[in-house]
Amino acid sequence: MGKYDTLVDLLLEVIKEGGDTREKDNSIPVGISNRHIHLSQADLDVLFGAGYQLTKTKDLSQPMQFACQETLTICGPKGAIEKVRILGPVRNESQVEILLADCFKLGITAPVRLSGDLQGTPGITLVGPKGSVFLTKGLMIAQRHIHMSLEDAKRLDVSDGQKVTIQTDGLRGGTYTNVVVRANNTSSLECHIDTEEANAMNLKSTSKITITK
Amino acid sequence: MGKYDTLVDLLLEVIKEGGDTREKDNSIPVGISNRHIHLSQADLDVLFGAGYQLTKTKDLSQPMQFACQETLTICGPKGAIEKVRILGPVRNESQVEILLADCFKLGITAPVRLSGDLQGTPGITLVGPKGSVFLTKGLMIAQRHIHMSLEDAKRLDVSDGQKVTIQTDGLRGGTYTNVVVRANNTSSLECHIDTEEANAMNLKSTSKITITK
Repeated sequence: MGKYDTLVDLLLEVIKEGGDTREKDNSIPVGISNRHIHLSQADLDVLFGAGYQLTKTKDLSQPMQFACQETLTICGPKGAIEKVRILGPVRNESQVEILLADCFKLGITAPVRLSGDLQGTPGITLVGPKGSVFLTKGLMIAQRHIHMSLEDAKRLDVSDGQKVTIQTDGLRGGTYTNVVVRANNTSSLECHIDTEEANAMNLKSTSKITITK
Repeated sequence: MGKYDTLVDLLLEVIKEGGDTREKDNSIPVGISNRHIHLSQADLDVLFGAGYQLTKTKDLSQPMQFACQETLTICGPKGAIEKVRILGPVRNESQVEILLADCFKLGITAPVRLSGDLQGTPGITLVGPKGSVFLTKGLMIAQRHIHMSLEDAKRLDVSDGQKVTIQTDGLRGGTYTNVVVRANNTSSLECHIDTEEANAMNLKSTSKITITK
């Protein structure tokens, strides 16, 4: 038997032995993020008035996170985008997550970053009903990531910080690499991608993806 | 030596033997399409006046194809999108290629289709300086595809109509499946994706992709 035949036979055998694992439901719900803003209380005070409290309109899938009634205009050197949603609760530092397409409209090149990793990111102007703020940093395109509990991580055989590849089928199917696992005790299982990433693969908020590593 | 070790050794050997093939430049330039319109002469006459001729501003990569100075407003039941570019020359049938994100704004669900495959697609209203046209069909999201000559097809070991998978590396790397090969005597090598597909993988007009099948 030639080398290639041996290879094919071995591959088939290994795949067959993995059959039990493949029958488990390892699918992961998709959460699709449009451009949005996280604010510090200090910036919220300037934009909406001293001591202002955000108005929750909808709980998000991750514990404690919610969409707010409030929106802002974000302005760059080339253009502005109106009605950008604020997400609560307030954070230590303000952060603006945009789509890659928005960079062209705003006239600013933003890097792909994990939420919270603000060092070296460009700034942007936020305009609210009571004032405006020029953030010196905090503008980014969100790096795709998967929130999960530590139990989910164990079940899916991945660990916090690991970069995995996700897959979806269909006419606009494919894979995305460098999807960061964010596993801790307080997270719910959900793969976060932005609207451009979702549209490019025709993924909806009811879609599920799988990890292929 | 165990089954897994044998498998790994064989894989490494096969990969090594494939070294010559991998050194060939099989990369393919990327062409990124924003929403655009192809018009029939009859529709052009209604929208811009009888006997109107399109004004070329830029040659496109495919022979005879060009971008025009003229734009139109496209209108659906929910909203309108202004300044949608017309591409020339005129065709037998009018066709409007939009982004998946545009469906939400227009209030119309458009299917993913290859250019020219209009049967069963929804219609849309086009508004020009001299009149408007209600197309009864022709609205689609372009299915990603690769134009190439027959020589390119032979060199890349693919054939006209074949669906292949393309790959790119980097922080937003990944693969897209169901990319249709369009090979004929008059085409130049270029992989056409829309702006959402490009942005989701951080592909620019200077980027190149490879076919992985």
